Amino acid sequence: MKAAYIEKTNAPLNIKETELPVSTSAMKLVKVTCAGLNHRDLWIQKGKYAGIKLPLIPGSDLTGHIDNQKVIVNPAFYWGDNPSCQSKDFEILGLPSSGSIAEYTLVPKENIYPAPEHLDDIQSAGLPLAGLTAYRALFIKAKVKAGEKVFITGIGGGVALFALQFCLAIGCTVYVSSSSLDKINRAISLGAKGGVNYNNENWENEMLEMSQGIDVVIDGAAGSNFGKFFKMMNYGGRISLYGGTQGNIEKISPQILFWKQLSIFGSTMGSPLDFENMLALVSNHKIVPVIDSIFGLNQINDAFERMNNGLQFGKIIIQITES
Amino acid sequence: MKAAYIEKTNAPLNIKETELPVSTSAMKLVKVTCAGLNHRDLWIQKGKYAGIKLPLIPGSDLTGHIDNQKVIVNPAFYWGDNPSCQSKDFEILGLPSSGSIAEYTLVPKENIYPAPEHLDDIQSAGLPLAGLTAYRALFIKAKVKAGEKVFITGIGGGVALFALQFCLAIGCTVYVSSSSLDKINRAISLGAKGGVNYNNENWENEMLEMSQGIDVVIDGAAGSNFGKFFKMMNYGGRISLYGGTQGNIEKISPQILFWKQLSIFGSTMGSPLDFENMLALVSNHKIVPVIDSIFGLNQINDAFERMNNGLQFGKIIIQITES
Repeated sequence: MKAAYIEKTNAPLNIKETELPVSTSAMKLVKVTCAGLNHRDLWIQKGKYAGIKLPLIPGSDLTGHIDNQKVIVNPAFYWGDNPSCQSKDFEILGLPSSGSIAEYTLVPKENIYPAPEHLDDIQSAGLPLAGLTAYRALFIKAKVKAGEKVFITGIGGGVALFALQFCLAIGCTVYVSSSSLDKINRAISLGAKGGVNYNNENWENEMLEMSQGIDVVIDGAAGSNFGKFFKMMNYGGRISLYGGTQGNIEKISPQILFWKQLSIFGSTMGSPLDFENMLALVSNHKIVPVIDSIFGLNQINDAFERMNNGLQFGKIIIQITES
Repeated sequence: MKAAYIEKTNAPLNIKETELPVSTSAMKLVKVTCAGLNHRDLWIQKGKYAGIKLPLIPGSDLTGHIDNQKVIVNPAFYWGDNPSCQSKDFEILGLPSSGSIAEYTLVPKENIYPAPEHLDDIQSAGLPLAGLTAYRALFIKAKVKAGEKVFITGIGGGVALFALQFCLAIGCTVYVSSSSLDKINRAISLGAKGGVNYNNENWENEMLEMSQGIDVVIDGAAGSNFGKFFKMMNYGGRISLYGGTQGNIEKISPQILFWKQLSIFGSTMGSPLDFENMLALVSNHKIVPVIDSIFGLNQINDAFERMNNGLQFGKIIIQITES
């Protein structure tokens, strides 16, 4: 079979022929039609991820077929029995196991689910990792409720867009941030009420004025902007953090944190139940993942380059075979 | 009546004669036998608190009498209907309203409770503010459970000591920190399993080795030590923060926060239900507040000086009248 390989960090990927993996009693072989790209794949390619072992087939998202059934895969393997955190055996598809940017991939059979019926192969390949992450951050951690005001940073990223769609589905008012006016406008066309450019000085004052107070923040950036959330937040507000693209959190005020009874939740991926509930939400509300662009397997380095430039609005998809 | 007055910030308090306040349909006059000191009183005297209006009678804690019944007062006034945070009307006894370091004080009648029967006037005067704060931080925010390992910073402070006693009562294993070996040893004599000096380099490694992983941190300091909690914490761990004596939180790693599924809860004071549940816990387990020292009303500046020097282990009590 053909597969994309990271053979060296900070170097282009190579498409190579490799042996077809073999199903076992625990692991099933899935024929991949479309794979989805995530920031995780880019971090691995850049060598900025724990436990990298090369060569590696990257990719955590896919739509595939098994026995003519269209399936998707929960990329969170071996979560374990504790809903509040993953077990020591926990893995994510695509490191250390071979990932989805290949003609076939091997996954634990309990991680295989029927793809949502209202989605085509390209759309459903964008859903698993980012949808799961957004679901847990919003509903298990921040426990967002209908009618609340939610601020989602870095709109355009996969998790941020699912967070937007999920919040709109349950009846929240959503505000966004981006460094791109175009992305803010696209989010507004999807249903966001407004947005701010996080590079503006005092963007937090703009957001406070626009929203009159935020109940929930969904953030994947951290960095120096994180402490600025506090000012715009309502008493009892919650922040869910699922990433750290902007580095360490600096300078947060303990007095505002405790006086406003704020909570900060670290969140990553999700349990099997979270994945099932996410699929149910997506199916019930006929949510369609936002697709940024589609590349062929031979264009894999163009796809990585697009993510590296941060230009995407929605999921970048690698079409492996025609469905 | 006699009362202690802060008339100028950063100046000694004065004991002055003033008019007896008058009960209304909403407010009851309580004859104070003992008042308890809190860091809040010291911050107000130093001018480091929001909304200071002088002159002011400070004090948030008391044991008193009404019609020959021994009472204590929930110092959290006008919490409101939302259990997750205080209302806009919220106040704490002792600012802006006149506080408890006086022969009499006026409080909302719904904030008055019978004093726990197993405590004398001195002991029960130490309970309200710190007991309430510890209760909410532990049980409403961090949701600490029997069998968990809890790390309590700055042992010797009122909230920290109640957190220690409450955790031991429900069956947790408790570790502490202090800059004083004497305070660590006193905490161990109360039932803590061990402790570290937070001024040691790599104290977080000592605590990790000693505890083999912490589930819950109760912290009132914040500052540069805050980010060091993450390393010693178990997956799914929770931090409750109720104060910020060491200033801004600096340099926390988003990656550890989300990967370990950690939560950080700001917590202050508590709801009426929290206060009632705290009293029930104290009564059921016959918990006796740790008293550091007892001063007369005329020694009020010595009492403030003792707190300012940070030498106390337990509550500093001002005895107003013999009970």
